[in-house]
Amino acid sequence: MKVILVGAGPGDEELITLKGLNAIKNADVIVYDDLIGENLLKYAKDNAELIYVGKRKGKHSHKQEEINRILVEKAKENKTVVRLKGGDSFIFGRGGEEILELKKHNIPYEVIPGITSSIAVPEVADIPLTHRKVATSFTVVTGHEAEDKDKKQVKLSELNADTIVILMGITNLKHHVAELLKNSRRNEQTPVAIITNGTKSNQKIVKGTLKNIVKKAEENDIAPPGIIVIGDVVNILE
Amino acid sequence: MKVILVGAGPGDEELITLKGLNAIKNADVIVYDDLIGENLLKYAKDNAELIYVGKRKGKHSHKQEEINRILVEKAKENKTVVRLKGGDSFIFGRGGEEILELKKHNIPYEVIPGITSSIAVPEVADIPLTHRKVATSFTVVTGHEAEDKDKKQVKLSELNADTIVILMGITNLKHHVAELLKNSRRNEQTPVAIITNGTKSNQKIVKGTLKNIVKKAEENDIAPPGIIVIGDVVNILE
Ligand SMILES: C[S@@+](CC[C@H](N)C(=O)[O-])C[C@H]1O[C@@H](n2cnc3c(N)ncnc32)[C@H](O)[C@@H]1O
Ligand SMILES: C[S@@+](CC[C@H](N)C(=O)[O-])C[C@H]1O[C@@H](n2cnc3c(N)ncnc32)[C@H](O)[C@@H]1O
Repeated sequence: MKVILVGAGPGDEELITLKGLNAIKNADVIVYDDLIGENLLKYAKDNAELIYVGKRKGKHSHKQEEINRILVEKAKENKTVVRLKGGDSFIFGRGGEEILELKKHNIPYEVIPGITSSIAVPEVADIPLTHRKVATSFTVVTGHEAEDKDKKQVKLSELNADTIVILMGITNLKHHVAELLKNSRRNEQTPVAIITNGTKSNQKIVKGTLKNIVKKAEENDIAPPGIIVIGDVVNILE
Repeated sequence: MKVILVGAGPGDEELITLKGLNAIKNADVIVYDDLIGENLLKYAKDNAELIYVGKRKGKHSHKQEEINRILVEKAKENKTVVRLKGGDSFIFGRGGEEILELKKHNIPYEVIPGITSSIAVPEVADIPLTHRKVATSFTVVTGHEAEDKDKKQVKLSELNADTIVILMGITNLKHHVAELLKNSRRNEQTPVAIITNGTKSNQKIVKGTLKNIVKKAEENDIAPPGIIVIGDVVNILE
């Protein structure tokens, strides 16, 4: 009886870790999401039970409580359960919530880190989030906050790090750009890159500045899932 | 002729990616650092040339210019060169500097992301950097800045994200704590964790608050390399 949270990486299937792959190979049950290289499932045991809990268009979307219930139920059947998520389970992946539920039921768990899209997607597009003398700090933030967000939490306009990375921010790009410009550390010339479907064959990159990125994104039909990077690192390797 | 920058992960050797491992297996030359699971080198070809460029105590420490020179020289001998680094090459790894040098010499390169200690070390110690309603942003920052740091760059006291992660910060812990407390978002009760040798068999974790962490670190003989995490996520899974 055990649940193993495995980060599958950002899309390119070869970006899973050895440890994560071994967990997949040994699992009795695999509970998986969208944004997972589906080819990873071919490594599962022949008789492994594969349970899809993502939000594929047109299909019923599983609520977090439902996913928690499946994990607990399957583990209690004395199974080794792998919870397979895109990127890393602890970066906007709700892994912590699942663990709290497992703890409530005294179910043993393990976390195997994954390559997070927040770092790897810019990286593969030649954008390092840190660079000596240019960026000694970076912040990763969600552009899609819980509606019941705690007021204490910081706003986009208040983020001061040298590099800013926004996940789930494409849909509200215009709003985010306005917020970013409220901070005096940034201005209309601050470089911005948007990368969609990073590390995959349909990867798309658009670069610009806070002044023109909204227009450029429209012109290039930029659509989620994508990552927005703001700061001088965007052009540092050019 | 090619140089492949490979992130080796935070210490646990099984946290390398499949893609990174394949690059190691095919390399003619491997230029490697400290903080690398040395066991990874056993996957190299029998006749691969292994060049250590780390800073092991008592030994001559290679300057970045020297490493750049080796990479260029070996690539020009028409070799496939793997540059193997701890964690991820683009997170305080000077990968960007090496790529700029390779570009100067028209040498083709590739970057294979690695599991960064900044996320995975807290993760394996049960600390998620994000957690719904508690932390919708995290900042990773170095505690050891270049002496020639650009004045434009942000100071520790100005960082507002919900979670702060400091790398290379153990030696100056006292100073960092004082800086962190200058920001009104934090106070003496703000939770702090320090994890040294994360994901390895000699991993050590100390938890406290901004008020008592310096004392606790001393009492527990905390020494680099380590990671400092600040914010409510530190105790969220307890
Ligand atoms: C719910 S978050 C999960 C992030 C994941 N846990 C991780 O560590 O990468 C999903 C968001 O991650 C980003 N994302 C994930 N994979 C991506 C990819 N291959 N290319 C671009 N963005 C990606 C997008 O911003 C997407 O909306
Ligand atoms: C020069 S930085 C390189 C970071 C690396 N590129 C990465 O992505 O993990 C070295 C610092 O990373 C942190 N670090 C690396 N591996 C660690 C581990 N296993 N446990 C704790 N800290 C670690 C420490 O703060 C150390 O001083």
